[in-house]
Amino acid sequence: MKDTPPAEPSARRRFLRGAAALGGGASLLSGARAQSPEVLSVPPWSRQPGEPVLWQPYGLPSVHEKSVQRRSRGGTPFGGAASSMTPLQDLFGIITPSGLVFERHHAGIPQIDPDQHRLVIHGLAARPRIFSMDELLRFPSVSRIHFLECSGNTGSEWSAPSAASVQFSHGLLSCCEWTGVPLSVLLDEVGAADQARWILAEGADGAAMSRSIPIEKAWEDALVVYAQNGERLRPENGYPLRLFLPGFEGNMNIKWLRRLKLGAAPFMTREETSKYTDSLADGQARQFTFLMDAKSVITRPSAGQRLAGPGFHEITGLAWSGRGRVRSVEVSVDGGLQWQLAQLDAPVLPRALTRFRLGWRWQGQPAVLQSRVTDDTGYVQPTRAQLIEVRGLNSVYHYNAIQSWAVAPDGSLSNVHA
Amino acid sequence: MKDTPPAEPSARRRFLRGAAALGGGASLLSGARAQSPEVLSVPPWSRQPGEPVLWQPYGLPSVHEKSVQRRSRGGTPFGGAASSMTPLQDLFGIITPSGLVFERHHAGIPQIDPDQHRLVIHGLAARPRIFSMDELLRFPSVSRIHFLECSGNTGSEWSAPSAASVQFSHGLLSCCEWTGVPLSVLLDEVGAADQARWILAEGADGAAMSRSIPIEKAWEDALVVYAQNGERLRPENGYPLRLFLPGFEGNMNIKWLRRLKLGAAPFMTREETSKYTDSLADGQARQFTFLMDAKSVITRPSAGQRLAGPGFHEITGLAWSGRGRVRSVEVSVDGGLQWQLAQLDAPVLPRALTRFRLGWRWQGQPAVLQSRVTDDTGYVQPTRAQLIEVRGLNSVYHYNAIQSWAVAPDGSLSNVHA
Repeated sequence: MKDTPPAEPSARRRFLRGAAALGGGASLLSGARAQSPEVLSVPPWSRQPGEPVLWQPYGLPSVHEKSVQRRSRGGTPFGGAASSMTPLQDLFGIITPSGLVFERHHAGIPQIDPDQHRLVIHGLAARPRIFSMDELLRFPSVSRIHFLECSGNTGSEWSAPSAASVQFSHGLLSCCEWTGVPLSVLLDEVGAADQARWILAEGADGAAMSRSIPIEKAWEDALVVYAQNGERLRPENGYPLRLFLPGFEGNMNIKWLRRLKLGAAPFMTREETSKYTDSLADGQARQFTFLMDAKSVITRPSAGQRLAGPGFHEITGLAWSGRGRVRSVEVSVDGGLQWQLAQLDAPVLPRALTRFRLGWRWQGQPAVLQSRVTDDTGYVQPTRAQLIEVRGLNSVYHYNAIQSWAVAPDGSLSNVHA
Repeated sequence: MKDTPPAEPSARRRFLRGAAALGGGASLLSGARAQSPEVLSVPPWSRQPGEPVLWQPYGLPSVHEKSVQRRSRGGTPFGGAASSMTPLQDLFGIITPSGLVFERHHAGIPQIDPDQHRLVIHGLAARPRIFSMDELLRFPSVSRIHFLECSGNTGSEWSAPSAASVQFSHGLLSCCEWTGVPLSVLLDEVGAADQARWILAEGADGAAMSRSIPIEKAWEDALVVYAQNGERLRPENGYPLRLFLPGFEGNMNIKWLRRLKLGAAPFMTREETSKYTDSLADGQARQFTFLMDAKSVITRPSAGQRLAGPGFHEITGLAWSGRGRVRSVEVSVDGGLQWQLAQLDAPVLPRALTRFRLGWRWQGQPAVLQSRVTDDTGYVQPTRAQLIEVRGLNSVYHYNAIQSWAVAPDGSLSNVHA
């Protein structure tokens, strides 16, 4: 009895169409080295048994991938108030492995005993409560895939572009599956008052990192999160509990969450007065700029990498929007004169990274690679000149302009504005 | 200038409806211990700076989560031909962290140098070729979230149910985002002949693990995969290259892939003649049973766990089908007399795990928890009796019946058939 694989004509047509668009039955890498199968020898690891099962009860990457790691610019007086970046140039798809999710701490990573951790919800509430982790795990929960981006991501591109790689220019960006309790469920549990319009969220770190959250976000899609990519949160991502506000700037997603206070007005914490505001050219400050605007970047090939030679290459990268879904991504190989529509990997999820791809035959000439995202509100990612015209050069936050990578005749790539 | 969060009435209605269905403004955990916020003391980790950024350039779980690990039944004469299981009872959402993806090896984990690894594609092809990893990375690629399940998963439930936990009964199951080259692209590259109907896939491990793949699967959705959950494959999952056949039994997804040979007929390897066939009661053997049928299981609460006490609890678990998408999941708390429709977390993806949830108020009485999936072909997960009636008790593979967890008055859970 043989099971016949199910016919899925639409899927098959998609695959065939993809291949046909790139040259039909002809070789894509015809210019590359081709070896005859006869020369293939049996490698040493095929001649002997390998490591046993449970060699690593909790698995780790191959020793050959040691260079794929978070990196920091350094330069801060205290390593607990610093950031490290995700190596986007070495990653694939949309999920960031938890071990490589970017870091931004204000007083380091507290080492919290989950049995001792508590969340208090108080203020304008009929039934203020303290919750243990075991209690929080009994509530209705939900899992969602969302990006997380520091509002300072790409900040160096404003006035002093120097980043040697997309890790250093765009690496304060990650995307995970997050699991937790809808904040709306907890607000019902404590009986949030009608007058409550803002929520103070406070972390259990030494900085007591705190921000004011508009209560509309709690009713919309905010989560109190205890798991990330299937397992409990990592220590540097808020273990055992964090706030998650899909599409909002990273620092509002308070890690090591210990307190939510309901109030009638924003609490004006230091992180929203002295910092995390955008200074404009005329001296005004944009405050409470919660949503991360649409943005995209080509991650491969990108600055610091080198094309192996002329011929077929895949251009791929990431696009996202704090306002919703990615509608389309266009790619240019001539610095923005002509644009081609890139393919998007399914699923395209709201407030999640979206992977885009475009096949490209490089002829060995200089080129400038760019990507431009449009989100489902119709917002189009601006050029660097357009962004600076509106926002000036005083800000370090919320830079979201089109990124340009130059390809030299030797195949090496660099940041055009560095 | 204040950014108003976008109104998304449908999302807000969904959240409110979910909360309302569970009791509106009333407390869900009213029976549980409630503390006054006044007693909350400042914990020690809030009084001092924590660990610096890059404390772990590649991050790891908290030391408090050490018990969340792969486990093996042991008992095989050689640890290289064994399996380890994913701790489903401790996981959330649909993504399995790469460090906890189940293992099944036939000659251990080869330690492969990716620069030395080659893939040969030959046989009925106009342009047989050897590919290096660098060459494969230049081809068009795609990322997809799919489950992977050993055909022997839940095998112990056939005739000797004894599993102490869902990890031991259902843990040969994981779900990741996989990235690689569509096999159809590579078949075009080598000029697959019209007479080619089957593909021999062979691994670079000491067992030269090999299976025959129907070529229709290559044209449909098969991938040659080099990345998993955003980073390169883990050694135990095939580093640097594996075959991925969405929905097909695990062992056909050849790890450490080194050879694809195109032929006119199946190759009848030892893994599809002496093994991986299903012996029926009448002595016939079901061979080439590629597709994993629809299946579901409640992961929390499950055998070995204990409910903290009467009151509200969330019942949650996983459902999947090798034939496509999950259409619905029903949950019973009385051993199958009455069924309620569970909520499904979005996105519900084809041939991927789907997370289901149902709120439940436990009254402290004995209960039997079950889940039943229906996939988008209309196939309904069978009861244990229905499955055994059709398939007999001689098989160790492809068990997919409804699982039953008994809840005792003290809140402890056990496997009904153990």
